Amino acid sequence: MVPLLVRGPAWLFQWRAACTLGAFVQQRTWAGVSRIPGLGGPLVQRGSSSASSQAPEVVLTRERYPVRRLPFAQVSEDDLAALERIVPGRVITDPEELEAPNVDWLRTVRGSSKVLLRPRTSQEVAHILRYCHERNLAVSPQGGNTGMVGGSVPVFDEIILSTTLMNQVMSFHDVSGVLVCQAGCILEELGRYVEERGFLMPLDLGAKGSCHIGGNVATNAGGLRFLRYGSLRGTVLGLEVVSRGHHCGPASQVLADGTILNCLTSLRKDNTGYDLKQLFIGSEGTLGVITAVSILCPPKPSAVNVAFLGCPGFAEVLQTFSTCRQKLGEILSAFEFMDAECMKLVELHLRLASPVRESPFYVLIETSGSGAGHDAEKLSDFLEQVLGSGLVTDGTLATDQRRIKMLWSLRERITEALSRDGYVYKYDLSLPVERLYDLVSDLRARLGPRAKHVVGYGHLGDGNLHLNVTAEAFDVSLLGALEPYVYEWTARQRGSVSAEHGLGFKKRDVLCYSKPPEALQLMQQLKALLDPKGILNPYKTLPARA
Amino acid sequence: MVPLLVRGPAWLFQWRAACTLGAFVQQRTWAGVSRIPGLGGPLVQRGSSSASSQAPEVVLTRERYPVRRLPFAQVSEDDLAALERIVPGRVITDPEELEAPNVDWLRTVRGSSKVLLRPRTSQEVAHILRYCHERNLAVSPQGGNTGMVGGSVPVFDEIILSTTLMNQVMSFHDVSGVLVCQAGCILEELGRYVEERGFLMPLDLGAKGSCHIGGNVATNAGGLRFLRYGSLRGTVLGLEVVSRGHHCGPASQVLADGTILNCLTSLRKDNTGYDLKQLFIGSEGTLGVITAVSILCPPKPSAVNVAFLGCPGFAEVLQTFSTCRQKLGEILSAFEFMDAECMKLVELHLRLASPVRESPFYVLIETSGSGAGHDAEKLSDFLEQVLGSGLVTDGTLATDQRRIKMLWSLRERITEALSRDGYVYKYDLSLPVERLYDLVSDLRARLGPRAKHVVGYGHLGDGNLHLNVTAEAFDVSLLGALEPYVYEWTARQRGSVSAEHGLGFKKRDVLCYSKPPEALQLMQQLKALLDPKGILNPYKTLPARA
Repeated sequence: MVPLLVRGPAWLFQWRAACTLGAFVQQRTWAGVSRIPGLGGPLVQRGSSSASSQAPEVVLTRERYPVRRLPFAQVSEDDLAALERIVPGRVITDPEELEAPNVDWLRTVRGSSKVLLRPRTSQEVAHILRYCHERNLAVSPQGGNTGMVGGSVPVFDEIILSTTLMNQVMSFHDVSGVLVCQAGCILEELGRYVEERGFLMPLDLGAKGSCHIGGNVATNAGGLRFLRYGSLRGTVLGLEVVSRGHHCGPASQVLADGTILNCLTSLRKDNTGYDLKQLFIGSEGTLGVITAVSILCPPKPSAVNVAFLGCPGFAEVLQTFSTCRQKLGEILSAFEFMDAECMKLVELHLRLASPVRESPFYVLIETSGSGAGHDAEKLSDFLEQVLGSGLVTDGTLATDQRRIKMLWSLRERITEALSRDGYVYKYDLSLPVERLYDLVSDLRARLGPRAKHVVGYGHLGDGNLHLNVTAEAFDVSLLGALEPYVYEWTARQRGSVSAEHGLGFKKRDVLCYSKPPEALQLMQQLKALLDPKGILNPYKTLPARA
Repeated sequence: MVPLLVRGPAWLFQWRAACTLGAFVQQRTWAGVSRIPGLGGPLVQRGSSSASSQAPEVVLTRERYPVRRLPFAQVSEDDLAALERIVPGRVITDPEELEAPNVDWLRTVRGSSKVLLRPRTSQEVAHILRYCHERNLAVSPQGGNTGMVGGSVPVFDEIILSTTLMNQVMSFHDVSGVLVCQAGCILEELGRYVEERGFLMPLDLGAKGSCHIGGNVATNAGGLRFLRYGSLRGTVLGLEVVSRGHHCGPASQVLADGTILNCLTSLRKDNTGYDLKQLFIGSEGTLGVITAVSILCPPKPSAVNVAFLGCPGFAEVLQTFSTCRQKLGEILSAFEFMDAECMKLVELHLRLASPVRESPFYVLIETSGSGAGHDAEKLSDFLEQVLGSGLVTDGTLATDQRRIKMLWSLRERITEALSRDGYVYKYDLSLPVERLYDLVSDLRARLGPRAKHVVGYGHLGDGNLHLNVTAEAFDVSLLGALEPYVYEWTARQRGSVSAEHGLGFKKRDVLCYSKPPEALQLMQQLKALLDPKGILNPYKTLPARA
C-alpha cells in the first residue's frame, strides 16, 4: 500500500510543499529554466532547412555507396506530359525545389530525382502507380522525410511521390476515438486535432512536427508512447493502400495496375481472413503506398507528470526502472534514459542546461493517468523509495504543460544535437535490457579518440538503445571499426539491428543479423508477389542480392 | 477530482462499509451466492465430454453442408508406416479415440479423419508436413478444439495434427515478462505459471481450461482482456511456424518441404523487414502450423475489483460505459454486457442465480490496478455517479479471488448455457457500439416463435456482439431467416462478420461481407504462395470458389 504523506482535499498541493524532493527540485528546475535560453521554445522541425542550410553539400548516394542502378526506364518528356494529366499543376521539376526532397534529414544520403509528384487523392496515386508500372518507372514514396535510414529519399532518379497534399482528416468518432485520415497528415497536427476532442495520438516522436502519419505507419514507428500504448500493429485499425496490383485471374496472372486496397475499417476487432494491413505496416513503401490510415486514439489522460532524474550508474537506471514499474504500474507512460555525453551535446549545441546535478545517467519518467491526486501519490511513493535507496541522486518534477515540454525537449532534441556535432553513425538496437549499455562502453574503449562522441540513449522501457557515434566527417575506416562489429555484438545477444527505424537504404544489408534465411526468402517472395517489377521504393528494405 | 469518501489508513475497509451501494449489494451477493449450487465451481472444460456425452450424434459435415472433397490422396497403410517412423507410438487410428477430435466443441460439424498425429517437436511437425506435401495428403491442425466456427476439426478425412504433446514452457524472463512456450500449452496453465511469477497472460477467454496458446494465436483470439491489453498482434512478440515451404530458387521455384520459420524473438521492438509472424496470426492454420509462441505478459495487477450491475436499458449500458471510461480510466480492464435472456439461460441450464435484481441488461466491469486504495476510490466515485443518475439500478462488488470468479462465471458460461438450450446459431460481430443491440431486438421481432431464444452479450468495450439464436434442432428455414440477413445488416453498418472467432469452415463464405474483392484476391495469392497444394487446413478461412 502507498504510504500517504498528506490527507485532505488540498493534499496534492500540500504534498508538493511537504515532499522534500518535490520542493527542492522544483526550485532548482525553475531557477535552472530561467537561465536556459531556447529550452522549451518551438522544436526545430525535422525536414526544415533551418538546422542545416549552411551545411556542405551531401555526397550523392550512388557515389558514396556501392549500389548499381536497376534497369528502370528514365522519365521522358512524354512521361511528364502524361503525369501532368494525372496530377495537373502538381508535377515538380524545378531543380531548386527538388533539392530538399532528394536529401534525407540527417544529410547522409542524396538522390538525383528530377520529378516530384503531389497527388491529393488515392485515385491519383493509383493512376500514377499504374502509369509507372506500365512504363517501368521507379517510384520513391515520401512523407515528411524524417527517416533515419535513408528510406524516404530516392537512391538514383526514382520519381518522388510526395504525400504532402494528402493531408485531410476524413473522420473522427468522438466516442470510440477512431481517427481516419489521409496519409500526409502531420503527426503533431493530428495530435492537436484529437487532443481538442479529448483524445491522444497513440504515438509520439521527436519528428512529430514534420513526419506524416502514413510514413509513421510505413516504418512502423515506435517512439515515446510505445511503452504505454503499444505498437502500431495494435493501434492501427485499418489502412487504404495503393499497391502495384494483386489481381489474379484463373491462372494467378498478376495484372499491371495500381489497385486500391481498401481495408480502412474502424473496428477494434475484425477476424475476417488474413490481416492484410499488417503486410504494409513497416514495409517502408516497398509493397504499396499507404494513402489513408484508421487509428485508435486513447482518451487523453487528465493528469500528466514528468520526472527528470539523475542516476549514479546504469545498474541504478535498471533498478529505477524496476521500482518504477512496481510503484507506478498502469500510469507509467514513458521511461527514457540518456547518458552524460548526451547531456553534454544538448548543452553544447542547443544551449540547453541540465535541470539536475551532473550525473552519469539521466532518466525521464512520464506518468499519464485519470486522477491527478492518485498519480501524484504514486509518484511520491516511488520518488521516496529511489531517493532513499540512492538509486537516484537528484531530480526534478513537472506537472504543467510548458515545463513538461521543457524536460521532454532535453530527450527529444538529442538527435538534433548529434546532427550538429558532425557526421553521425546511427544504430537503433533492441537488446536485452541488462546488456543495453555494455555496447556503448565497449565501443567507447574500442574506438578511442577516433570517435568524437559515443553516446547512448533511448527507450529503456522497451529495451531500445539509440547508439550514436559522431566524427568530424564521414570516414570509411571508422565505419569499418563500427560495422559489422555492432551488428555481430547485437546478433550474439539475439537482439534486433533495427528496433524502430526500419532498414531503408542504409541498413538493408544487415537484415541477416536479425532474421534467418528462411524469413528473408519469404520476404523476397512477398515483394515479388506485390511488386513484380520492383518499382516501389527500390534499393530499400531487402538486401541487394536476390 | 475524485471526491474521497473516507480517509485514514483503513479507509478502504471503511469505504466498503460506508458506501451504501457497497454494503447493500455485498449483502445481497453473498446471500445470493450461498443458495446457488455450482456458481464458482470448477468451470466446465471446453472440449471435454462432460457437457455433451449424452447428446445425439453430430451429422457429418459433408452430409449437412454442400462441400466437395478436394482431390487429396487418401491415407494408405504405407503412409501410416511412414508417419509411425516420424512420430513413433503417436499415430492414433483407433476409431473411438478419433471420435472426439472429429467433432467441434459446439457439436455442429463432424469430420471423418482416420488418423491423428501427436508430434512433440517442431522438427516432427516439419517432417510430417514435408511427407504430407509430397504425398498430397491434407492436414487439419488442432489445438484444444474449442473453436466456434468449425476451423479446428477436419471436414473430410484430413489427417489431424494435434499439438497436445507440444506443451513445454521453453523460457520465461522474470524482468521483461516474456514467455516462450510450445504451441500446445493450455492457456489456463500458462496463466497459473506466469501468475506465480508476478505476471498475467495478456488474453483470457471462457475456453481457457482447454484451449491451446497456438490455437489462440492461429485464430487471433480476442477475449476478456482485449480492452486492456490489446490485440495478440501487439502482445505476440515472436512465432515459430512450420510452413509448407517457401524456399525460392533463382526462378522463384517453390520447393516442397516443411520449412521451420523461426521468428521466435523476445524483443518488444524489431523492424528488420516485413513482420512475417503477422501472416500467421489469425490465419487459422491455413498458411502454416504455429509450433511455438513468444508472448509479452503484463505485470500482474495487485488489485482487482469486479462490479456486476443491472441497467434498465441499452442506452443506459452505453452511458455506463462512457462514465466508466471517464471515471476508471487506465484501471478499467473489462466491460462486458449480457441481456436478460442470457441470465435466464444460465439460471435455467446451469442453475446459477443472478446476484442482482432482475434487469433488462447486466454489465460486468473489472478494474485491475497497482493501488487497491486508489482503485477502490475510483470505483466508488464511478458507482456513486451511475447509481445517482439512474444508469444502474442494482449492483454487487467483489474484490477477492473466489467471488470475482463467481461473478465472471455468469458471463463466461453463457456459451455453455446456450449449448444446452438446443442447436445454436452463433454470430460474432463487430458493430458500431451505438447500434450493437438493435440487431438483437430486430431479430427477435423477425424470428418470433421460430427461435427458442435470441440473446445478445459480449465485449461491449470492444464493440463486439455475440448474437446467438437457439432452436430445438438445426433447421434450414430458420437458417434462411438468419442468413444472409444478419450479414447484410452488419455490412450496412460497415461491421465485421467475424470479430474474434475467425471464419473457419462455417463462416468462410461470408468473408465478402466485410472485405472487398481486392483483399480476397490478395489473400488467395498468399495462400497459393505459402501452401501451393492447399493441403493446410483445406475448406477453411477462404471461400470455396477460387
